[in-house]
Amino acid sequence: MPAHLNPHISVDCVVFGFDGNELKVLLINRDPSENPAQSGKLKLPGDLIIHGEVLIDAADRVLTELTGLHNIYLKQFGIFDDPFRLKPSFDLDWLRKRSGLRVERVITVAYYSLIKIDQSLPTDLSIAYNARWYPCTSIPPLIFDHNRIADRGLETIRREILIEPLCFELLPEKFTLNQLQRLYEAILGCSLDNRNFRKKIQRLPYIVPLNERQNGVPHKPARLHVFNNKKYTLLKKDHNVFIL
Amino acid sequence: MPAHLNPHISVDCVVFGFDGNELKVLLINRDPSENPAQSGKLKLPGDLIIHGEVLIDAADRVLTELTGLHNIYLKQFGIFDDPFRLKPSFDLDWLRKRSGLRVERVITVAYYSLIKIDQSLPTDLSIAYNARWYPCTSIPPLIFDHNRIADRGLETIRREILIEPLCFELLPEKFTLNQLQRLYEAILGCSLDNRNFRKKIQRLPYIVPLNERQNGVPHKPARLHVFNNKKYTLLKKDHNVFIL
Repeated sequence: MPAHLNPHISVDCVVFGFDGNELKVLLINRDPSENPAQSGKLKLPGDLIIHGEVLIDAADRVLTELTGLHNIYLKQFGIFDDPFRLKPSFDLDWLRKRSGLRVERVITVAYYSLIKIDQSLPTDLSIAYNARWYPCTSIPPLIFDHNRIADRGLETIRREILIEPLCFELLPEKFTLNQLQRLYEAILGCSLDNRNFRKKIQRLPYIVPLNERQNGVPHKPARLHVFNNKKYTLLKKDHNVFIL
Repeated sequence: MPAHLNPHISVDCVVFGFDGNELKVLLINRDPSENPAQSGKLKLPGDLIIHGEVLIDAADRVLTELTGLHNIYLKQFGIFDDPFRLKPSFDLDWLRKRSGLRVERVITVAYYSLIKIDQSLPTDLSIAYNARWYPCTSIPPLIFDHNRIADRGLETIRREILIEPLCFELLPEKFTLNQLQRLYEAILGCSLDNRNFRKKIQRLPYIVPLNERQNGVPHKPARLHVFNNKKYTLLKKDHNVFIL
């Protein structure tokens, strides 16, 4: 084996979805038209990059091919380069058979995405590779090191929602504080104290209460709020302690 | 050519150094024992990873082998994956000859480092590959896409010093506001207004003035300051506008 043996490169996508209640992750079946519940061969959508392809295009292509999702904002969050991340007898054999290549080592570049699970998603999501949403609170065993990649993706978005206004992408334009709290709880994987949450949110000048309430709800309609990105950007600039 | 042709992987290191006055970048000669001024073949320290090696170890190894620096904190900041980043007749020919491999495409993972140029650096830095510091204000033409990588590294540290306390690593433990300002100016590549700079710095509770002054200077000795990391961490946590 030459000392500089070149690894193959793949991309893997950790697509998180929020359905208004739970945080979920999109998984596919390793082989098309197999029952994943039977085979136990679930994985993240991902594949080897092809000749002449840049990584982000590969991630886009793979996601569309394997799940039907397209035009999703993907953000690179890690490189998984452990030389022994694929088990020879199980992972590598399958990969060699599938690709027809003498794969020895694969380095994968991981992307995450955070989307709203709603009617705008394509309905043919789940055909060939049986792409389905699984709750993040109980991600099933995945092949390769995909549980590790999914966990790292989850850690990444947990950190990001505390410092970036990611979460407003996942809510309706006008939202209640309850909806916002449920979103935080779903992503952070814990419950937050109601009163403290409200107190903290009310101090944030960029979450603006409207003179408008929910309608068509069985309980007392709650006040609606919007996220004001301009106010957020100004405040953030001001709070960047080193900005000169 | 197979559709999944696997690229080679390399690492490249953009090592920035501050000598108390200027920001510099560490460059090496492409081929050992050549005069870079004559050959015009300067580059960033970097090379293909070898069999079984993880990326960060490769970056460490390459830096030590090519420059003599070791145990330097390296931070990954980008992946350069343009399929045409290496010019066939010039870059690829050389790389094939040097590595003895049929290289078609190389994806490189880039790391940056920010260090103090002082007596603690190894003195044999510049032997085989003629590793030398070049001012960031006039980086000479480099081979491959290394000017692009160096520029992106510079953009990265310019952003980072505004939000992270990186710069104190580059100053003596006790520093004057003049030294701090010179450092900012060197990294940002512009001059800052003296009075505004001082006003802003004096508002930061974690830059603490001491009852001590410089000594052995030909001008009026200036007051010394220290960076208080504990105060900084507390304030930063408080200023993270989304922290719940």
